[in-house]
Amino acid sequence: MLHVKTPEEVLALIKQEFSAVAETERVSLAAAMGRVLAQDVAATEYVPDFDRSTVDGYAVRARDTFGCTDAIPAILPLQGEVLMGEGAEFELRPEECVAVPTGGAVPKGADSVVMIEYTEDYGDGTIGVSKSVAPGQNMIFRGDDVFPGKVILEKGRVLSSQDIGALAAIGCVQVPVVKKLTVGVISTGDELVPPEVTPGPGQVRDVNSPMLEAMLTAFGVNVINYGIVIDDEALLSEKVTKAVSQCDAVLLSGGSSVGVKDAACRIIESMGSLLLHGIAIKHGKPTILGRTGPKPLFCLPGHPVAAYFITKLFVLPTLSRLMGRQQESYTVTAKITESVSANHGRAQYHCCRLERRDGALYAYPIRGKSGLITTLAGADGYFCIHRDQEGLAQNAEIQVTVTAGD
Amino acid sequence: MLHVKTPEEVLALIKQEFSAVAETERVSLAAAMGRVLAQDVAATEYVPDFDRSTVDGYAVRARDTFGCTDAIPAILPLQGEVLMGEGAEFELRPEECVAVPTGGAVPKGADSVVMIEYTEDYGDGTIGVSKSVAPGQNMIFRGDDVFPGKVILEKGRVLSSQDIGALAAIGCVQVPVVKKLTVGVISTGDELVPPEVTPGPGQVRDVNSPMLEAMLTAFGVNVINYGIVIDDEALLSEKVTKAVSQCDAVLLSGGSSVGVKDAACRIIESMGSLLLHGIAIKHGKPTILGRTGPKPLFCLPGHPVAAYFITKLFVLPTLSRLMGRQQESYTVTAKITESVSANHGRAQYHCCRLERRDGALYAYPIRGKSGLITTLAGADGYFCIHRDQEGLAQNAEIQVTVTAGD
Repeated sequence: MLHVKTPEEVLALIKQEFSAVAETERVSLAAAMGRVLAQDVAATEYVPDFDRSTVDGYAVRARDTFGCTDAIPAILPLQGEVLMGEGAEFELRPEECVAVPTGGAVPKGADSVVMIEYTEDYGDGTIGVSKSVAPGQNMIFRGDDVFPGKVILEKGRVLSSQDIGALAAIGCVQVPVVKKLTVGVISTGDELVPPEVTPGPGQVRDVNSPMLEAMLTAFGVNVINYGIVIDDEALLSEKVTKAVSQCDAVLLSGGSSVGVKDAACRIIESMGSLLLHGIAIKHGKPTILGRTGPKPLFCLPGHPVAAYFITKLFVLPTLSRLMGRQQESYTVTAKITESVSANHGRAQYHCCRLERRDGALYAYPIRGKSGLITTLAGADGYFCIHRDQEGLAQNAEIQVTVTAGD
Repeated sequence: MLHVKTPEEVLALIKQEFSAVAETERVSLAAAMGRVLAQDVAATEYVPDFDRSTVDGYAVRARDTFGCTDAIPAILPLQGEVLMGEGAEFELRPEECVAVPTGGAVPKGADSVVMIEYTEDYGDGTIGVSKSVAPGQNMIFRGDDVFPGKVILEKGRVLSSQDIGALAAIGCVQVPVVKKLTVGVISTGDELVPPEVTPGPGQVRDVNSPMLEAMLTAFGVNVINYGIVIDDEALLSEKVTKAVSQCDAVLLSGGSSVGVKDAACRIIESMGSLLLHGIAIKHGKPTILGRTGPKPLFCLPGHPVAAYFITKLFVLPTLSRLMGRQQESYTVTAKITESVSANHGRAQYHCCRLERRDGALYAYPIRGKSGLITTLAGADGYFCIHRDQEGLAQNAEIQVTVTAGD
């Protein structure tokens, strides 16, 4: 018999039971945004591949400018000009200078660039320099940015737009990313009708399928929505078997009744093994997790709020394991606007709205009985009352995980 | 002559000059995730549309259970059973009870539900209740969640998965969202080659186009990438004119040289009006903003780091104005691991890595000369040293805007 586990125990179990299975594929830069990097990416070239000026001015040997002032400028013959996008094919002669644009190549022999603001073109083929420069000043040396072998992005990272820029810079235009997982979503419940249908007496719309589909898609997996199955063990078993054969993970949601939970346990046991039955968390206690081979099977609570939190807190971390995905989630500090009581002994999660007033951030807990969709709609984030806390007093500082947009 | 503006002045200018122009379209629930809601959404029905049990048990009149205990249970004849997904077509008779499953309809006449755990089925058609319930206990009343006319989501909101769930619950399956904007991206610079090309002498790869494309796409707009244009005013003017005719906003990036900036100013003035030339920010001072009709035209700095920050801090807020998009960005508190000096007089932005150690969050500033791509790669967020600050001391608490994944 499996006992109810704490959230920490569940996360440890997930870590122990599941590991990276996803394959690697190569996608274009434009398609790589938000994908999970499948291997470390190292540079194969120098960036920049030439010494480069960071200002408009004159490339010089720094020593030729030492001691110059407004009153006594260093006068250097102009040896030539470097054009943008072209190499500097010649070498700077001592006590001369070469005009270079911002981003232009600094010729051999030069070790610094004088900004044009501190020079005067005398019109006779010489340039007056009124401010000395130090070696290395106003230029980037070859390989300053990256050099061959330097790892610039690590495996497991979710690629951001900045990372895409870095990949472009080193010419990595076919990016090795983790192949997208496919996750199956099944809703069960005799009372459910699809969202587009007006519910009859005793019926409600299926909220979990579209919510989970949106959440999973935004997380970066493909979703197969198997729709609604009535509470019939044979039909359910058939649907789960089909989903397992087509997907890398399966989420069964609903089954608020004990009968369905029992059926889900039997189905999981017939296909693999049951790992978990019950999490000490409000809302979301009646959660079941099993596996068949490397594939996780979740049976989520039917209540949308509970299904939301279980997916956020445990399903997505499980998918992260399968993908080798490394991404921290961060919290923001806010003051809670009213006190919230808690049941000692289990972690309690609440949705909230966030509002900034007079420079401070306030969290408004969204009230409502379990399963009410309006406790989800319009939420900006959520917070947790830990199992050893009695509750939260008004104005207490809390840590909010921001969910706006995901 | 336009003077250099502070970031706050630029944001005020953007607010003043640009307003919502995007049209409304209706998309399916599955396509609505991450989109901007174009109008307030109100419920047109009651959810739930019937009184609903939140537990497995027996629907009763609460008063019929008052005073009952384990020793002296209330004995109530079982009048019948409500099945899941069906209406309760009968009315509960006084001093009787009706079996209801979790989520099932509570019959008229009943005002509460006794959990099955506190009952005993005597097998003779009567049920013993050993714990009293209060009116309203263990049930949700019709319209508790939402009722007709109740606004559940407000215009301008970026739809999250929770919101998708709420829309499903009220049957809003054709969601009114803001039509996606189209943004044109043009890179300019004689030294630029596309990322897939190995740079020749004096050349570097175009980093800004792919980076901006990724950033804008993740932000929820369509991007037309016009590629690289050489520094030639006539060609540039032609390309900008084409982009303006096809897009809602145009970003020209590059033009590190003064000549290109001047050309960009002339092009903008010939098509509309110049609003801004220079922002007091490191990096990103040489930024130009203009408009032609309702369309913004930005000329961004060529340095990737500068182009990144200007886009994040000013271009996306401009696009938000055009879309009527309302989304706060939040910061996390972290300790800075080393001191960072700053130039008094202008806001200074730095990328950083975040690391959690012993429960505390640390921000590692990413060092590097302006324009080096490795100051972007692998960043988890950024922080700002404000213009009136001298710099930051080691271990100072700073506010970091998390950018991982966007």
